[in-house]
Amino acid sequence: MPNNKMPNSKPEKPAKAAAKTAARAAIAKNQPMLRSIKGGKGTAKPPSGKHDSAKHPAAPDDAPIIALKLEMAKLSPAMAAYFKKCQDKLGFVPNVLLAYAFDMAKLETFVAMYNDLMLGDSGLSKLEREMIAVAVSSQNRCYYCLTAHGAAVRQYSGNPLLGEHLVMNYRVARLSKRHRAMLDFAVKLTASPWSVEENDRERLRRVGFSDRDIWDISAVAGFFNMSNRVASATDMRPNAVYHGQAR
Amino acid sequence: MPNNKMPNSKPEKPAKAAAKTAARAAIAKNQPMLRSIKGGKGTAKPPSGKHDSAKHPAAPDDAPIIALKLEMAKLSPAMAAYFKKCQDKLGFVPNVLLAYAFDMAKLETFVAMYNDLMLGDSGLSKLEREMIAVAVSSQNRCYYCLTAHGAAVRQYSGNPLLGEHLVMNYRVARLSKRHRAMLDFAVKLTASPWSVEENDRERLRRVGFSDRDIWDISAVAGFFNMSNRVASATDMRPNAVYHGQAR
Amino acid sequence: MPNNKMPNSKPEKPAKAAAKTAARAAIAKNQPMLRSIKGGKGTAKPPSGKHDSAKHPAAPDDAPIIALKLEMAKLSPAMAAYFKKCQDKLGFVPNVLLAYAFDMAKLETFVAMYNDLMLGDSGLSKLEREMIAVAVSSQNRCYYCLTAHGAAVRQYSGNPLLGEHLVMNYRVARLSKRHRAMLDFAVKLTASPWSVEENDRERLRRVGFSDRDIWDISAVAGFFNMSNRVASATDMRPNAVYHGQAR
Amino acid sequence: MPNNKMPNSKPEKPAKAAAKTAARAAIAKNQPMLRSIKGGKGTAKPPSGKHDSAKHPAAPDDAPIIALKLEMAKLSPAMAAYFKKCQDKLGFVPNVLLAYAFDMAKLETFVAMYNDLMLGDSGLSKLEREMIAVAVSSQNRCYYCLTAHGAAVRQYSGNPLLGEHLVMNYRVARLSKRHRAMLDFAVKLTASPWSVEENDRERLRRVGFSDRDIWDISAVAGFFNMSNRVASATDMRPNAVYHGQAR
Amino acid sequence: MPNNKMPNSKPEKPAKAAAKTAARAAIAKNQPMLRSIKGGKGTAKPPSGKHDSAKHPAAPDDAPIIALKLEMAKLSPAMAAYFKKCQDKLGFVPNVLLAYAFDMAKLETFVAMYNDLMLGDSGLSKLEREMIAVAVSSQNRCYYCLTAHGAAVRQYSGNPLLGEHLVMNYRVARLSKRHRAMLDFAVKLTASPWSVEENDRERLRRVGFSDRDIWDISAVAGFFNMSNRVASATDMRPNAVYHGQAR
Amino acid sequence: MPNNKMPNSKPEKPAKAAAKTAARAAIAKNQPMLRSIKGGKGTAKPPSGKHDSAKHPAAPDDAPIIALKLEMAKLSPAMAAYFKKCQDKLGFVPNVLLAYAFDMAKLETFVAMYNDLMLGDSGLSKLEREMIAVAVSSQNRCYYCLTAHGAAVRQYSGNPLLGEHLVMNYRVARLSKRHRAMLDFAVKLTASPWSVEENDRERLRRVGFSDRDIWDISAVAGFFNMSNRVASATDMRPNAVYHGQAR
Repeated sequence: MPNNKMPNSKPEKPAKAAAKTAARAAIAKNQPMLRSIKGGKGTAKPPSGKHDSAKHPAAPDDAPIIALKLEMAKLSPAMAAYFKKCQDKLGFVPNVLLAYAFDMAKLETFVAMYNDLMLGDSGLSKLEREMIAVAVSSQNRCYYCLTAHGAAVRQYSGNPLLGEHLVMNYRVARLSKRHRAMLDFAVKLTASPWSVEENDRERLRRVGFSDRDIWDISAVAGFFNMSNRVASATDMRPNAVYHGQAR
Repeated sequence: MPNNKMPNSKPEKPAKAAAKTAARAAIAKNQPMLRSIKGGKGTAKPPSGKHDSAKHPAAPDDAPIIALKLEMAKLSPAMAAYFKKCQDKLGFVPNVLLAYAFDMAKLETFVAMYNDLMLGDSGLSKLEREMIAVAVSSQNRCYYCLTAHGAAVRQYSGNPLLGEHLVMNYRVARLSKRHRAMLDFAVKLTASPWSVEENDRERLRRVGFSDRDIWDISAVAGFFNMSNRVASATDMRPNAVYHGQAR
Repeated sequence: MPNNKMPNSKPEKPAKAAAKTAARAAIAKNQPMLRSIKGGKGTAKPPSGKHDSAKHPAAPDDAPIIALKLEMAKLSPAMAAYFKKCQDKLGFVPNVLLAYAFDMAKLETFVAMYNDLMLGDSGLSKLEREMIAVAVSSQNRCYYCLTAHGAAVRQYSGNPLLGEHLVMNYRVARLSKRHRAMLDFAVKLTASPWSVEENDRERLRRVGFSDRDIWDISAVAGFFNMSNRVASATDMRPNAVYHGQAR
Repeated sequence: MPNNKMPNSKPEKPAKAAAKTAARAAIAKNQPMLRSIKGGKGTAKPPSGKHDSAKHPAAPDDAPIIALKLEMAKLSPAMAAYFKKCQDKLGFVPNVLLAYAFDMAKLETFVAMYNDLMLGDSGLSKLEREMIAVAVSSQNRCYYCLTAHGAAVRQYSGNPLLGEHLVMNYRVARLSKRHRAMLDFAVKLTASPWSVEENDRERLRRVGFSDRDIWDISAVAGFFNMSNRVASATDMRPNAVYHGQAR
Repeated sequence: MPNNKMPNSKPEKPAKAAAKTAARAAIAKNQPMLRSIKGGKGTAKPPSGKHDSAKHPAAPDDAPIIALKLEMAKLSPAMAAYFKKCQDKLGFVPNVLLAYAFDMAKLETFVAMYNDLMLGDSGLSKLEREMIAVAVSSQNRCYYCLTAHGAAVRQYSGNPLLGEHLVMNYRVARLSKRHRAMLDFAVKLTASPWSVEENDRERLRRVGFSDRDIWDISAVAGFFNMSNRVASATDMRPNAVYHGQAR
Repeated sequence: MPNNKMPNSKPEKPAKAAAKTAARAAIAKNQPMLRSIKGGKGTAKPPSGKHDSAKHPAAPDDAPIIALKLEMAKLSPAMAAYFKKCQDKLGFVPNVLLAYAFDMAKLETFVAMYNDLMLGDSGLSKLEREMIAVAVSSQNRCYYCLTAHGAAVRQYSGNPLLGEHLVMNYRVARLSKRHRAMLDFAVKLTASPWSVEENDRERLRRVGFSDRDIWDISAVAGFFNMSNRVASATDMRPNAVYHGQAR
């Protein structure tokens, strides 16, 4: 997937760099871009030409971003820079970042962990990590994550059907043995974590995953079990722009 | 609970400070304290006088720490300092840290998020956050987290029975309305996140929780839904010393 | 929703007429339009201009239509006429009809019941019936029905988000009390039919549904509990064209 | 089972014929046999000698037929003829028909589909189709269908125990491999339709079922997942006569 | 219910007396009545005139009594007397007693507890205790207990429909508030014992149950949660005669 | 485990003897040792030196013993002797006995069955039976039984970790094949008794269990499914002393 054509939902710099950036007390001039956690400009404005805004004029169905009244904090320099990068690259700041932006420590740790897991070095491709995200979010019926990461699967794979399959029921996707084993593990870990045992890990090894890969599958599945719950607990709403991406 | 008498399972410095420390490229001399992720010295050595080691000589039941073969990385200076603090304050390094220590980025982001959530500023007391940790981990039947955080509840509360109640079935604990509502929310969010709605949040508000508190309850519950799964997926084993703490 | 602009997935003539038509041994010349139950022309051909076929050239992910080898039968005159109407109005014959077309008695009874329930007289609007279809299909995670009826909800409502909400988790949709009660009933009836009792019916009456409406809600929910299972049992695949409709 | 001795709960003419009859606008004089949907004569009157009516004088436990107030419509000629046939052959009109008789289109499509599925041509015997009906209805705990189709299994099989086994727990029946595979498939399809996959179909093929048979198993299982829910949603009550049949 | 007309499935003497009898080292001559635990004479022989044995000649479907090979022990004098009483009063020895008869200590303790709970002094009528037995056994889908205690409900109540309702889905029975609360409690205690709390007990008190009654409801529900599992674990088969009783 | 060092929670005399004793109308002078079912002396008084009572001064969290107001009855001579033996051997009377002591018939039948199952002759060791007790009680989340029998597993095994593993999630214990099969059977029988079939019994036979052993596994698992429910239904609280035993 050519990066210069399809807006990536992630910052260009990978995890570790972003984390450092965040923590390093960046020098960038610190001007909060968004005034309110409830419906910032970035929320409603889709990238021009990507979406027929006439049909979703104000997306009232998906505002405010969360059901909690939390004042957005002054962005730290690192986070201000990161938000600016999102705006430049994606055309919008993902709502989950706005939701966390009431507290810089929480926003920074979330961003650092997210970027390490989803964009850092791994034996799993970025698409594979997004596939796990969607299969887990489907098990948990998380609207925010299904929308944002469903779009990511469509983008990374160039196969819109794959995104739909994983949102609705990953078992209908015609997956390689590797991917089927990967998602079976992630979904079992989601539905009944107490029942995951050595034979489950062995099945992953048999299709070629290393022990480090197994950690990464587990960590990504675990991360979305966290994010799904924060999103559901707060009624988090995705940016409208995701719905039309890469259909 | 007097800190000087009961070894705390957390570093003395609260979340934000620890995170900064980690990221700030600490000056401490960087010497990995632990040679192997499978059964480091810190794992088996309980604080003297706390546990009858004759009865658990090598804890073979709970070694190795995880079921994945991952080489421990060279600790970053920040993490080396943090591990040293654990050793000094607690008498051991919690196994979860050893488990993450194969990769500094993962260890640092985990530590940063953990410390912010569990030890940072919040309308929830540290005990309340540990109570959520245990109730969630009981729903998910996570051995590692029930052991480590069950001990924390016993310590923070000074009430060993409360720890047992939360491990086994939080409904048998005689909780205040505030705490019952808090744990009902956390456990519902764990068992069926898709079903959490405004009336659930309203119930929290009615017993006095602010919207920021609701975020924190959700974030802590979410975090342990992640940790429980990483622990179950990797068969993570707690330090033997937890079992006897604060009985 | 103007019929002349948005291709309707239903024949123009309502249920009763269609049923009569089917049974009346129509005079239309009987020429099967489709050669094979596995990937008829109608499957892949989207209405011109509605979909970028370059991106889904042959939809190999969703072929064949079902996982059973069943020879398509000679269409009865009534069914030949009905398929022709689908082709003319929609630009394609829905795959579910092709799936049933191995046996005219089964196809005709399915069509008759479907059209009566979804398009016949009712106190429920057509949109409401499609909303039930999607909420039930989400509970059952039925790929075929979520795709086809998700598109119908987007079309009928003119609100793409509503379609997404119902596919993913109907509880996140901001529904009227009437619609929430309607879908709560349909989903409870799907998940635990044995537990539906008079108080459930009373809740529907309180938001204004008549006893006849309650029948219709039940019958539509029941119908999709049937269709979901026929589709899952046979691995039925939706026409590719649905995915892009009314986004 | 000799038809002339045991009243069959189905019309003598098989599915297709009945459907045609219904649709053909029969010439029979159109006189509604039943005045009210709530407890028609046919409901309470068991075949003479079959049941001790003194003990169930008016079956107050099982009246009215449904919990919705729906006026019975004038029977179409086809349906009047069909009801007369039921009365003649069975000694009563099954309550499910009375329940649907508020609307001729619904009654006719239900009868047409039912008769095609349960009495039409199939590689499955009529007993096998009834076995599926009962196993599905047991999973869904549907009182109406367990009663009516439990009686049918007892009648068709001449083995009263088989009826009881399937009502209570089909796993206790000592079934052939064919029948066990058939019911395992039907019950899995009922309990978790999303999880039915190719290996489930393969198991059916291995015990000798053709692809057409697999369709029929799926369609019958699907049909009762519909009927169970219509019955539960409306609190439908079976004719008292079923309870004593073929014990 | 006149005892002299309807064979009671219990010994004439109530619980406490029976227990004493059993333990008192009865004087009756000790001659084992049954030679084999697999299909004793008492199993197949229905009370004359109660059942058409031609239709169930040897009940091969329900033999042997259990799937374990256990030699029947020599009956203790007390148990020999008790079995004789069963034979005299009921016309057969219930298979559950034959199943336990491989060990006199187990048989005697089972009989003593059963008789105390089901026939001893209680604020619950014998019918009420049987209703609990059936509702619990339905939740657990226990063939043996549904058959034996379903017959008991039919007998005690003189209402065959009540027996059917409780076997299939107790929610369809038209119960008094007292009985509905009683069965709701018993079924909740069966399905999710961890969730039973003070408000559940309060609901029982509000419909008039004393604390002693609550104990008895709990103890009977508990007892059948035990018996259901012993029966399912051993594939225990009921005496054929139960099927036809009190229809 | 040397009996003279570790206080056994059972009476010295095995089951059968105790049962006989109870039933034989013992001659011991009948003096109720306990005045009230709510917090008898035996409840709070731990064996000297076993527990730091300063830390659990009155155990208000776990009093009264049950949530029902039931007057303790006059102990029968047999039960008075039995309670005295408990006091002498264990230093306390287990609360479950006090809970049943409102009625001598119930207390005696409970004691007789308990002692036969848990202490009588069996191919299962006493530890194995306690392991089943804890695994079942964990599935049912029963506070009383997890506490009392968790302590017994710690004592009998001399392995405190085993007790913790079984309380939290028996799958994390490193069990022999025999013990894993035994607990898998017991937990499946607890969670879904209807699904236990011949292949489950066969698995037990393959690891060396006899048919008599299978009975005993089933009976112990069944017994705790009963006791768990009586305990949960009555909010039964364990003696405080258990918490500290054999850590």
